[in-house]
Amino acid sequence: MKLSARNVLTGTVTAIEVGQVTSHVKIDIGGSIVTAAITNEAVADLSLKIGDRASAIIKASDVIVGL
Amino acid sequence: MKLSARNVLTGTVTAIEVGQVTSHVKIDIGGSIVTAAITNEAVADLSLKIGDRASAIIKASDVIVGL
Amino acid sequence: MKLSARNVLTGTVTAIEVGQVTSHVKIDIGGSIVTAAITNEAVADLSLKIGDRASAIIKASDVIVGL
Amino acid sequence: MKLSARNVLTGTVTAIEVGQVTSHVKIDIGGSIVTAAITNEAVADLSLKIGDRASAIIKASDVIVGL
Amino acid sequence: MKLSARNVLTGTVTAIEVGQVTSHVKIDIGGSIVTAAITNEAVADLSLKIGDRASAIIKASDVIVGL
Amino acid sequence: MKLSARNVLTGTVTAIEVGQVTSHVKIDIGGSIVTAAITNEAVADLSLKIGDRASAIIKASDVIVGL
Repeated sequence: MKLSARNVLTGTVTAIEVGQVTSHVKIDIGGSIVTAAITNEAVADLSLKIGDRASAIIKASDVIVGL
Repeated sequence: MKLSARNVLTGTVTAIEVGQVTSHVKIDIGGSIVTAAITNEAVADLSLKIGDRASAIIKASDVIVGL
Repeated sequence: MKLSARNVLTGTVTAIEVGQVTSHVKIDIGGSIVTAAITNEAVADLSLKIGDRASAIIKASDVIVGL
Repeated sequence: MKLSARNVLTGTVTAIEVGQVTSHVKIDIGGSIVTAAITNEAVADLSLKIGDRASAIIKASDVIVGL
Repeated sequence: MKLSARNVLTGTVTAIEVGQVTSHVKIDIGGSIVTAAITNEAVADLSLKIGDRASAIIKASDVIVGL
Repeated sequence: MKLSARNVLTGTVTAIEVGQVTSHVKIDIGGSIVTAAITNEAVADLSLKIGDRASAIIKASDVIVGL
């Protein structure tokens, strides 16, 4: 599936911290770590695990610029 | 100011496309381009211009994971 | 690509309103119309046009419940 | 109250999964299930329960298009 | 309609800047100005105008904390 | 750091409710309470505590207008 989201950053899953209903997934994108908060249901659906090749997908309207 | 946002990716502004009220800003983060949609008012407030060192700031809850 | 986003609603594109940098895309999901605000760049990248089969993708954390 | 949000999809609450501070609410919108991640405080405030008629409210800028 | 969104800040509309498809609406909340980017379609639907009593509605998951 | 986000509302932290991976932080902004859902990691990083002077930062595109 092609996505309208402008930002698709691909890397390697380095950590998955599982809460009661939410998980925090860390993806190493060429040295920068991107953290995603997703549902535990999604972690299970994707069978997400450390070492997986995965993408962080972000809409342009969700990005703040800091100077 | 320190931010709760988990993702602060720093790079160089490579493009600013100005619409009537919204601008699209592209930041090169170590080779990956991140696009931000921000208000023209913000572009003016920050005096944002090509070549500026700038950060793309993204909340963990705004990141989707794709496998 | 499999997505962590919990909501992937598939239907038919019924309208694309193009602004200077942002477009509004309407997708008919079994009778309900869902409106997406995306970049013109994304409309061009996807070669999006009326009649296309397309999905509205929404993170669970972006959904408000009203009673 | 009338809302600027372009997407107000009305249906029936089919599941409420309660975490420590966050709940996941599922609403059946004419056969499609929409999942919302909201605070437990909101679930209590709305006295939300299975079988309730409820709406999933989503801003157009939070919708990604997939093709 | 009661909303799950934790933040409903009520005030007076002080400015509406209309773009090609997006408008920026400013609401004075007891002295603080809150800016909302909404669709022109929503401005028309709500017949929004300067001086209106209106609320800025924000999900808790869309708020970043800065220290 | 200067931010593109149009809404930076400053006040005093009045409550921090800690879940397993997510915390809810309440900030009193001149009498209005704003709730933010942030990661526990961010609470720790900022050493956030009740009584702190803190800002609620919100993108204009995340604000819904209600009439």
